[in-house]
Amino acid sequence: MDKREKLIKSTKIYDGTVIHLREDEVLCPSGNHSYREVVDHQGGVAILFIQNNKVCLIKQFRYAYEEEMLEIPAGKIEKNEDPLTTGLRELEEETGYVAKKATYLGGIYPSCGYTNEIIHLYLVTEATKKEVHFDEDENIDTYFFSLEEVLEMVKKGIIKDAKTICALQYYQNL
Amino acid sequence: MDKREKLIKSTKIYDGTVIHLREDEVLCPSGNHSYREVVDHQGGVAILFIQNNKVCLIKQFRYAYEEEMLEIPAGKIEKNEDPLTTGLRELEEETGYVAKKATYLGGIYPSCGYTNEIIHLYLVTEATKKEVHFDEDENIDTYFFSLEEVLEMVKKGIIKDAKTICALQYYQNL
Repeated sequence: MDKREKLIKSTKIYDGTVIHLREDEVLCPSGNHSYREVVDHQGGVAILFIQNNKVCLIKQFRYAYEEEMLEIPAGKIEKNEDPLTTGLRELEEETGYVAKKATYLGGIYPSCGYTNEIIHLYLVTEATKKEVHFDEDENIDTYFFSLEEVLEMVKKGIIKDAKTICALQYYQNL
Repeated sequence: MDKREKLIKSTKIYDGTVIHLREDEVLCPSGNHSYREVVDHQGGVAILFIQNNKVCLIKQFRYAYEEEMLEIPAGKIEKNEDPLTTGLRELEEETGYVAKKATYLGGIYPSCGYTNEIIHLYLVTEATKKEVHFDEDENIDTYFFSLEEVLEMVKKGIIKDAKTICALQYYQNL
């Protein structure tokens, strides 16, 4: 049975810098009409950077949650940018570490009920530290923890970020 | 240094069934003004149901991605509902399995750049099958796979859902 829902009418609600919102009227396989709220997002990239058995985490204030969070370095894919370029650029911008290569771990769907965002995950195992000049509004601290410490922080609820936990899952599953 | 961003003005953009959107003007610690796009979401619950060494996955069409996805059973927290009730209700509604108890694994932040959604994850290891009467618009198939099969599907990119991958990470980290 075809489970697809067919678009009847799409209404644009919002065009932001990070997200775009539309409300789509759809025809369900049952014949009923329904509405779907969709957040369009051009996708992101996150880097699990592990060197000398230490995992790189950054801490930054996340406005939506009104708290500081520990996460792996990540950022939004800019227009016409390929995910690997995004990942290496964000790693350098956020931590000052420059890497030449990365291994693709997978692409995750963070919240499939309302957004089409895909976060691509890469593993970096070799990078060189450069001087970092932060944008004055980017307040990011960089930390290195052992894998055991990081897993313990997931367990204790200190690390709650989904892309970080997924990256660890891919890494342990390699 | 205080990294908090202070709200200057909040503009309500959209009030939907699943999500709400606001655009907030904020004062950054640097003194600059900026804008934050925030998707307000009342949160969800997902259940990792493992019985007789088999993991329960459901397959359903996800409109935002225009594809069918394999995920653990999950749903949105209804008003005044506690997460455990949501989880057990959704497990029953989506799979027909009734459980009496569940173990809390953790609460994940799916996409911290723009939403404040929290997805609470629980583990269920004992449930009884009841007859299930689907809403005619809920086309959900239930499957059982071994943990090894599920991990292989994550590795191969067949399972891409973040809450499912995170739940596996918590489970393997127990």
